[in-house]
Amino acid sequence: MTEANRMADNQVKNPANTADNSPARAGADTEARKGGRSGGRSGNRRSKAGGAITQLAWKPPVNPDRPVEPIDEGAVLRIHDAAMRILEETGIHFMNDEAVRILKAAGCKTDGQCVYMDRDFLMELVAKAPAQFTITPRDASRAITIGGNHIVFGNVSSPPNFSTMESGKQPGTQAAFRDLMKLTQAFNCIHFAGGYPVEPIDIHASVRHLDCLFDKITLSDKVIHAYALGTERIEDGMDMVRIGSGLTEEEFQSRPHMYTNINSVSPLKHDWPMLDGAMRLARRGQPVVISPFTLAGAMAPVTLAGAVALSVAECLCVVALLQIIRPGAPVVMGTFTSNVDMKSGAPAFGTPEYIRATQMHGQMARYYKLPMRASNACASVVPDAQATWESAFSLWACLSSGTHMVYHGAGWLEGGLIASYEKFVIDCEMIQHLSHYMEPVPVDDDTLAFDAIAEIGPFGHYFGGEHTQARYETAFYSPFLSDWRNYEAYELGGSVDTTARANRIWKQMIADFEAPALDVAIRDELADFVTRRKAEGGAPTDF
Amino acid sequence: MTEANRMADNQVKNPANTADNSPARAGADTEARKGGRSGGRSGNRRSKAGGAITQLAWKPPVNPDRPVEPIDEGAVLRIHDAAMRILEETGIHFMNDEAVRILKAAGCKTDGQCVYMDRDFLMELVAKAPAQFTITPRDASRAITIGGNHIVFGNVSSPPNFSTMESGKQPGTQAAFRDLMKLTQAFNCIHFAGGYPVEPIDIHASVRHLDCLFDKITLSDKVIHAYALGTERIEDGMDMVRIGSGLTEEEFQSRPHMYTNINSVSPLKHDWPMLDGAMRLARRGQPVVISPFTLAGAMAPVTLAGAVALSVAECLCVVALLQIIRPGAPVVMGTFTSNVDMKSGAPAFGTPEYIRATQMHGQMARYYKLPMRASNACASVVPDAQATWESAFSLWACLSSGTHMVYHGAGWLEGGLIASYEKFVIDCEMIQHLSHYMEPVPVDDDTLAFDAIAEIGPFGHYFGGEHTQARYETAFYSPFLSDWRNYEAYELGGSVDTTARANRIWKQMIADFEAPALDVAIRDELADFVTRRKAEGGAPTDF
Repeated sequence: MTEANRMADNQVKNPANTADNSPARAGADTEARKGGRSGGRSGNRRSKAGGAITQLAWKPPVNPDRPVEPIDEGAVLRIHDAAMRILEETGIHFMNDEAVRILKAAGCKTDGQCVYMDRDFLMELVAKAPAQFTITPRDASRAITIGGNHIVFGNVSSPPNFSTMESGKQPGTQAAFRDLMKLTQAFNCIHFAGGYPVEPIDIHASVRHLDCLFDKITLSDKVIHAYALGTERIEDGMDMVRIGSGLTEEEFQSRPHMYTNINSVSPLKHDWPMLDGAMRLARRGQPVVISPFTLAGAMAPVTLAGAVALSVAECLCVVALLQIIRPGAPVVMGTFTSNVDMKSGAPAFGTPEYIRATQMHGQMARYYKLPMRASNACASVVPDAQATWESAFSLWACLSSGTHMVYHGAGWLEGGLIASYEKFVIDCEMIQHLSHYMEPVPVDDDTLAFDAIAEIGPFGHYFGGEHTQARYETAFYSPFLSDWRNYEAYELGGSVDTTARANRIWKQMIADFEAPALDVAIRDELADFVTRRKAEGGAPTDF
Repeated sequence: MTEANRMADNQVKNPANTADNSPARAGADTEARKGGRSGGRSGNRRSKAGGAITQLAWKPPVNPDRPVEPIDEGAVLRIHDAAMRILEETGIHFMNDEAVRILKAAGCKTDGQCVYMDRDFLMELVAKAPAQFTITPRDASRAITIGGNHIVFGNVSSPPNFSTMESGKQPGTQAAFRDLMKLTQAFNCIHFAGGYPVEPIDIHASVRHLDCLFDKITLSDKVIHAYALGTERIEDGMDMVRIGSGLTEEEFQSRPHMYTNINSVSPLKHDWPMLDGAMRLARRGQPVVISPFTLAGAMAPVTLAGAVALSVAECLCVVALLQIIRPGAPVVMGTFTSNVDMKSGAPAFGTPEYIRATQMHGQMARYYKLPMRASNACASVVPDAQATWESAFSLWACLSSGTHMVYHGAGWLEGGLIASYEKFVIDCEMIQHLSHYMEPVPVDDDTLAFDAIAEIGPFGHYFGGEHTQARYETAFYSPFLSDWRNYEAYELGGSVDTTARANRIWKQMIADFEAPALDVAIRDELADFVTRRKAEGGAPTDF
């Protein structure tokens, strides 16, 4: 028999594969015909708690695989050397006079805002940064460890637009922001809330951070990010996290409770607000993710080695600055090295270059003993096959590089210009696949099943066997979004494709959303803070 | 600036990113508006040779990455031990009396068709199989190496149905068979033609193999497979490949020119026709891929370790048989270990279990020093997001396991029950991504670009730089299916999503197809062979 024969044969012989007498199958079909909101196969796995889907429990994964290393040790040293030469000979612009003063006082040569760093000086400071640290949000059970073999996934961050199947691309609103925060909280595979999941431009920029941070802290109990976009915003962000966690300032500063991400203005520049914010976080003991934005061929050399060297240089000089300010300040080496379409200049993601650059960054981060951040990025503008392979390859880049923080884990489209509700659900399904993939594979007498093989012999079927029955409920990863029915059942069910199923799921999840518990006094204190700061005018909008 | 700001900023500042003055962009837009057959961005890269797409050149990849190994050496030995115990104590049914006689004569204990093999006996025979070999088809420049760090991709094999966006699922026809063979030949990233890309049920089963093999050999110059489905079919297959390559029988037997794949009837059985065919190929020096069909929870234990152990046992016993017949006979350890949906019995692919089982098989194949085959499998019934992540994860399983032959590389849907034209194109795009990914990443003075970084400094842009201009045309992988335009241009172009673009591409590729050159005398000899064998009645259909 050929493989297709075997497949057909399995479908006929398998005692479970009878649509008429399987309660789960029958239930799914009925739901699909009714066009119910949870629809399709997702209905099969409705949790008893009433959620739209049955998902994996909260459990930040441990990545057991040895990273893929595309370059050898000699090449790692050459990239290091190039990065050091950039810092020693070419210099990097710190567009923040306070930062320049601090670096000059520490012994750096400066020329206006251009700072030159000696490699011994730099490496001594880099060595002070921790290889691993923990961030504890208001619910301590949601703490995440950054470093080691840990890997955590965040939501989409900072798109100016959102999209749904119905709406298409639309400018961000507070309603969309809240929807996407609810998905961020509801999906257990999302471990932290990055920047705004969409920029709510219907809130005035001077007070936007106050409303957004209030929503983030009240709609979610996970680790959150605050933007380093001006003194007021970042200090407000820290204050609100402190209040939300019910901490004194001393307790807040004693360990990480939130974080920020800063991007360089590649090539070779760091701007004022991000440096200001980074320094403020370091002073208050909070982690800074430093992510140069080095698109090869645009803001960085067209060659991967050069783009990675530039990225490393741009990152490490800020690591050094923060270690001067607070030795041991938690930092993360971020990477955003990908390529651009050389025909149009459009950024490309999930490309072979993106995977390799990310893996190379992983090698560099391990060389410097720093935790690392990369992204689930894609260029596609709709959540179709291209979006899926770009994201699947980006996620592969993260896992295979030893990335610790996966930014933009769920929902990114159009190179970060759109937060897609359906893509959010599709990405979470892929992340759940990978979370299960990272679980250990036991090999012992029980799993080798020698006795079961002997007992079932050549003419039995495993489905009904005792060894199978004892394990079948938890044996395999059970997706919430996949439709594994045959073509005919799929067609009979209305041909609801993956994106349409994702659409049903996010609607149900948002409808079912319940905010995590928060002490009323804390909520009131947060609300008072927002009121007061709004009365004071919020933050300037001229940065 | 946040990442989204940086992204928007890049799009504005990038000198190439002006739709009005970019000839490539303007050309693509015009084509999309015209609704031309090649449409969308694929039009950008129309090759000078007039093909529908510009694709990577024929170049079977070398996989440079260290395989991912989910289990340790001790666990490899435990799986080996379990496989040996299955062969020693449980026995495997060879439903072919000739095979039983051969094994008995070689010293195996038998009980009817049940054969028991001692591990020393078995391992001595397994050691005779080559770790690497080459298959040379009628065009020697299309030879493929199986083993080492080589990885080759085949087309979809053996579905009884095909689908296009227009047709939906339809029973296989000769016309569809020919279409899919044309795509198999036209895509350079497809290195061999597996089983029938769709089963043409409009040709009588007794002569189907004759028409199909004639088409395969005349429409393609790549390595082909012939089915081990009865004596006549497999001998005809070998004869036709011999004729197609213009070889004497002695020349044919001197090295591999084609191959077959056999599947066990798991658990613990090998059927008559596949054993018959395998033995015939071994006698004539042609390679046999031995792929147990061990879906965990159905034909194999629900635990991965047990399913892999069973698969290894089922494979190795045939390796031993073939090594008795012809020491050094080329064989490949196949794997088809995945899981089933325990709710419905439907096979599942691209799952965490599939990836891990494939990687474990890779470890076992390296332990036995045998080349390995796995698949680009998926369960989705339409070429949507689910199909794409399942295939992306399956391809990842292949690359990360050290797989040498990737079966069903392009076109598989519904667990092998559908050959999809659009999925074929989508898979080829993913395979091209991965082929480029496997190219080495150079790190040297040229690629480190220190001088270019110094020269461009903090206020320049790399797009116009000399270092960039000298390399931009070949710097990055250029996909044929991706649309990297922004949302607005995508919408203006008619919102042609990836599947719809794939639809346009296959139509153009089939329209543009030119069969590879074949000597007229050889073609006539092949046609005469087909005529004669049809007159003789072809092959029996009662196997």
